[in-house]
Formats: sequence, structure tokens, C-alpha cells
Amino acid sequence: MKRIAILGSTGTIGVQALEVLSHLDTYEVVALAAGRNVERLAEQVRRYRPQVVGVADEAARRALRELLPGERMDIVVGDEGLVACAAYPSDIVLNAVVGARGILPALATVGRGARLALANKECLVAAGDLILRAMRDAGGEMVPVDSEHCALHQCLRSGQPEEVLRLVLTASGGPFRSWPKDRMAEVTVRDALRHPNWNMGQKITIDSATMMNKGLEVIEAHHLFGVPYDKIAVLVHPESIVHSMAEFVDGSMVAQLATADMRLPIQYAITYPERSPAPWPRLNLASVGALHFEEPDFDRFPCLRLAMEAGRAGGLAPCVLNAANEVAVEAFLREQIPFLRIPEVVEAVLERVPNEVPQSVEDVLRADGQARRLAELYVAKG
Amino acid sequence: MKRIAILGSTGTIGVQALEVLSHLDTYEVVALAAGRNVERLAEQVRRYRPQVVGVADEAARRALRELLPGERMDIVVGDEGLVACAAYPSDIVLNAVVGARGILPALATVGRGARLALANKECLVAAGDLILRAMRDAGGEMVPVDSEHCALHQCLRSGQPEEVLRLVLTASGGPFRSWPKDRMAEVTVRDALRHPNWNMGQKITIDSATMMNKGLEVIEAHHLFGVPYDKIAVLVHPESIVHSMAEFVDGSMVAQLATADMRLPIQYAITYPERSPAPWPRLNLASVGALHFEEPDFDRFPCLRLAMEAGRAGGLAPCVLNAANEVAVEAFLREQIPFLRIPEVVEAVLERVPNEVPQSVEDVLRADGQARRLAELYVAKG
Repeated sequence: MKRIAILGSTGTIGVQALEVLSHLDTYEVVALAAGRNVERLAEQVRRYRPQVVGVADEAARRALRELLPGERMDIVVGDEGLVACAAYPSDIVLNAVVGARGILPALATVGRGARLALANKECLVAAGDLILRAMRDAGGEMVPVDSEHCALHQCLRSGQPEEVLRLVLTASGGPFRSWPKDRMAEVTVRDALRHPNWNMGQKITIDSATMMNKGLEVIEAHHLFGVPYDKIAVLVHPESIVHSMAEFVDGSMVAQLATADMRLPIQYAITYPERSPAPWPRLNLASVGALHFEEPDFDRFPCLRLAMEAGRAGGLAPCVLNAANEVAVEAFLREQIPFLRIPEVVEAVLERVPNEVPQSVEDVLRADGQARRLAELYVAKG
Repeated sequence: MKRIAILGSTGTIGVQALEVLSHLDTYEVVALAAGRNVERLAEQVRRYRPQVVGVADEAARRALRELLPGERMDIVVGDEGLVACAAYPSDIVLNAVVGARGILPALATVGRGARLALANKECLVAAGDLILRAMRDAGGEMVPVDSEHCALHQCLRSGQPEEVLRLVLTASGGPFRSWPKDRMAEVTVRDALRHPNWNMGQKITIDSATMMNKGLEVIEAHHLFGVPYDKIAVLVHPESIVHSMAEFVDGSMVAQLATADMRLPIQYAITYPERSPAPWPRLNLASVGALHFEEPDFDRFPCLRLAMEAGRAGGLAPCVLNAANEVAVEAFLREQIPFLRIPEVVEAVLERVPNEVPQSVEDVLRADGQARRLAELYVAKG
């Protein structure tokens, strides 16, 4: 039995991860962490009997205890509780927390030599170098859960690291792939939440609509695979069947294809280096019929350009980009700012926060906080 | 310096192999074998200075000697000469001989523990079990040169053999992919030699037009990768960009994509397990735009069905299929029989030659000869 902790267990990824574990019978869930969805968390605790359970705050702790009066479990609270769940002895930590809150649990996981199954790309974006250093020092490992990076992880097995010419991340292009620029000024929250292929959480769905998500993935790929930015490209592929590709020096492109189902990358990150049979539907390429590819439009999707520039700039820039984006996306979801204001807020914040190389996670968290406060100011202006 | 022998050096694959070797500078050509194209062979000998040179017959030997009076080389003749070239000490033998004549040199190569870079699929089709046994006994290895099998070889690196759910061989569908059946009765040699994507030798181009080539490749894949026939599928893909795919038990399909250029698989088979930079053009998927996939039509392409049935039947059936097909294709190229007569000849011969398990290569060669004589009879009937 391998022991696994799931952070963000009541979110889209967390729920699917537990579904995957229910057909893999060699894993024991030792820790679950969620936010305030105490009802669902209580159900999960009843079924998987973890030893530690993390919740957002004291109110959630009391509510969970009331729902499960006799349950033998330690309940831990807040960001410290999240870190405690990651630090609790296990073989694998699935980090499916949303946003920069994933940084400290990621450090706690790789820093004790465990496997980090990474669904929280923001932690690599904001603190990639620090997390990688901690991982190397402790002999930990990271296996990505993002479908694109899971694809790259599989494709890269077909060659040596020094034989990689280029990583090609595919992007669906989101719901506005073919909208003219002027129409994009009128995008509603409902429009933006209507992703053509994937059923995901709200934050990542908006990031897909702005293509910020693909930019964050470029930064994530840079850290995960140690490939320089000039060797990472984005290719729009509306069907989301080819999840990404590795191009080798001999001209071979190796691609991974599958239905758009997150259970596959979740399972891969858990069972790697093995593959387990899947109960979900298989891809039928003949019934798909055609796969299309086109270059991304950096003009209509400025978030993609901003993220790639921040990645190249390095230092605190990706952290600042990510924090400003989180604030702007939340403001858009609350209908405080229009869709096209998201990149403007991000760009304005990037221009205001001085870029330097973070020496510690405190530097990162400080820049994150500063960027958030600035972004709130820009958001308040509308 | 690794030593390499090239059998079929003046053919399409042989010429491209020498081109590949001219930009890889760590290989020494120790043997070249060709048929009757003595002019081109003499040029190759002048440039690559092999120690042994094989030609078809005594007339070719004399002609070559006259062209290269002072050259220090042993000239060997006929099928025995081919085997001598394969047996000559080298690290790699590229077998790019056309047809069942490739069997004995393949055995000579793997039987002395060298790498067989296999462009001659017919030897595996006709004598797969015997060649594999010889390879295992001597510790030799085989790396395929066919673009489909080279793709599979690369894709399979992404998992363990027991994790393979299915191999999917892609097929361009050839020039008659979308022709109605009645129009196919009027196919001319010129029509059939007009392959949409690949520039290949005449025999394989006709085999692509009948889709016999894909059937032979299914049998080849069965032997190369040890995958049972019920786990090998064919998928029509007109653009010939996805060269084949491996589907794993977790639902991941791993595909290899590249331009339709045989230099890539030739180089891969030589440099494996390494990849070398390629001077040929790289694939640009955005400019390709779309990739299409459809199920094969076993009704309009009976050769595909016959080959898959012969593969499943095993024993001598694939050898008989291949021999009858070689005779029928030659007859079609000489305009002795119409296009749709090719599968009829093959089927008639398969019905007449009793199937049994060959105990030795002599059994295989005897069945090959018997099938050829029978096929000649059917061809003579028109």
C-alpha cells in the first residue's frame, strides 16, 4: 500500500483523484485537505478514513467535527494545516490547491523526499527555482497532473534530455479562439466559463479563455523539464486531443493523444512509472475525424504574451504576474472588471513591482502580497 | 567508428542511407550490395571504399571490375554474395533488399549478434519466427526502418511492453483511398505509381496502392514488437504525418509525427538509442493545418484483409501471401494483369498451398518457390 495525501480534495481535481483511487486498490489516503466545502469533505472522510484532515478555518473545523463526531482524525486548519497535510508521512502528495497557496505545501512535499503530483501550476510559476532546489536537495520528485505536462512527461520518455529540440504545448484556444478582437470587449462571465472541451474549476476556465493558462503552463514546463524558453512553443489545437508534443533533434515529434479527461493525467502522476488500466472511454480517432492546428494570436490574447515575457524575465516576474492575474480573474468573476481589463491589470502590476531574484520563499510571498495589493487597487479603479 | 553494411545500396532506401551517413561522421561503410545498377554502385564504392561489394551476377561483377580496375575490394555475387555482405564483420547491417531475397541476409545478421536495421519487411513476414529465434539465440537486435515501425519503436519507449493495449498503424490509403470500387477496375500502372505522399520504389508503391503494404506491416509489427494480431489496428490517415501510434492501457495514445522523409527512420535505426540532429526540413503542424483519420475499407482493399488473415493463420501463410503478391505486382507492373487481379491471384495461391509451421528456412524458401510458381500460373491466365 502506498500512502497518498490529497490537497484540494473537494475541488474538480481532488474529486476526480478520489474517483481514480477507488479503482486503484493499492493506495491508502492518509490526508485530505479542503477549504469550506465541509459537507463533501465529511463524505470523503467517511469513505477514505484519512488520519489528518485540513480545512480553511476554525468555523470549518467545528462544522466538520459536528458532522463526524466519533471520527478518529486530526483536524488541521488554514495554510499551516495545508502544510501539515503535505508534511504528514506519505509517498505521494497530490497538490490540487488553487493559486499561490500551493507553494508552501509543495515545498513541504519535495523537501521531505516524497513525490509531488502537481496540479497546482501556480507554485512552480511563482517559486519554481526554490521548489526545484528543495526537491534536488531532498531527493524528492515531481510528476505533473496538468494534461499538457503529463503529455510532455510521456513524450520525453522517447529520447534523452539533450536530444530535445523543442516542447510544443497545445492550447484549445478557449471559447474566444475565433472571436474578433472588438467582440472580446463584450465577453460576459458566462461566455468565459463555457470552455469548449474541458470541465474544470472556474479560475482555470477563465485562464483558458484569456490564454493566461497556457502562458503559466509554459513557465511550468520550463521548470518541470529544464527546457529554456526559446525552446518552448504554443500551438493552438481546438480539439484538445493532442495534449502536447516533444520535438527531438532528429525531426521526430512525439505526441500524446487522449480524450479530454483529467482522470488520465491524475492516474499517471500517481502510478508512474507504471500505467494502470483505465475504466474511462478510449479515444476513437476515426470518429473524431480531424485534428486542427494553428499559430496562437498574441495580439488578441495579450495574457499569453505577458506570461511568456515574465517567464523569460525570471526572478519575481512570474510570481507577480500570477498574483495579479489571480486578483484580476476573481474581480472579473465578480463582474467588477471587464474581460479585456484582466491583461491590463496584470501588465500594470508587472510594471510597478521591481523585479529581483528571490532568495527565499519569504521573498516570493512578499512579492505575491505586494502584487495582490496593487492589483486590488487597479481593480478598484474598474 | 561503427561499421555498417548496406544491402540494396542503389535502391531508394540505400541511396538515402548513404546520404544520412554522409552527415553522420562516425560510421564506416564496410560492405555494399546492389543488383545490376553497376554505374551507381561504382560511384558509391569510389566514395565510401567498402571492403566487400555484392552484385547480382557474373556479368555485373565484370562490369563493376571494369569501372574500378584498381579498386581494392572483394566482389561477391548473387544471393550468396548478399549473405556474405551481411556476414562480413560489422555493427549494423541495413537490409534494404526488395522482397523475400532479404531473408537469408537477415538471418546472417541477427545470427552473429549484429544490429539489423530492417527496411526489408518481407523477411519478417515470410520467416519472422525463424529470424526472431536466431536473434534471441545470438543476442542480436532489430531496429525497424519502415516509417510506421520506427514510429512505433519510438512510441513504445513511453511504457512497458505489458502496458500496451494496441498498436495503431497509420496508412495513407494510397492514390485510390477515395476511388469508388468500380473505377478501381480501370487503374493503370501510372495511376498506381502516383503515391500522394511518399517517393518510394515501384514494388512498395504498388503495395501501398493495394494496401497490401499495410497488411505486410501489420505482420511485421506483430513480429517486431511481440504484439498479438487482435491488438494491431490500421487507421487511414491521408496526410502521412502521424506515422503510427501506441495505445497504452491507461488510455494514452503516443504518436510519432514527422514529414514524410525516409531519412529520419533510416537515421534512427542507425543511431538508436541516440538521436542525431537532422539537416532535413522540420514538420510545421500549423502550416499542415489539419490531420484526418478514417477507418480502412476492407472491401475495396481486399489485400489488407488477406494479409491480416494470413498473419492470424500464421505458419507458412504470410510467406505464401508475400510470394504470390510479389509475382502479381510484377505482372501488374508489366501490364500482364489488371489491378484488381492482384488480390485474386494472392487469394487463389493462398487457397492452394497447404499451411504448416515451417521448421527451417528451407521450409520457408520451398513454400516461397511453390507460391511463386502457382502465382505465375494464375498470372499467365491473365
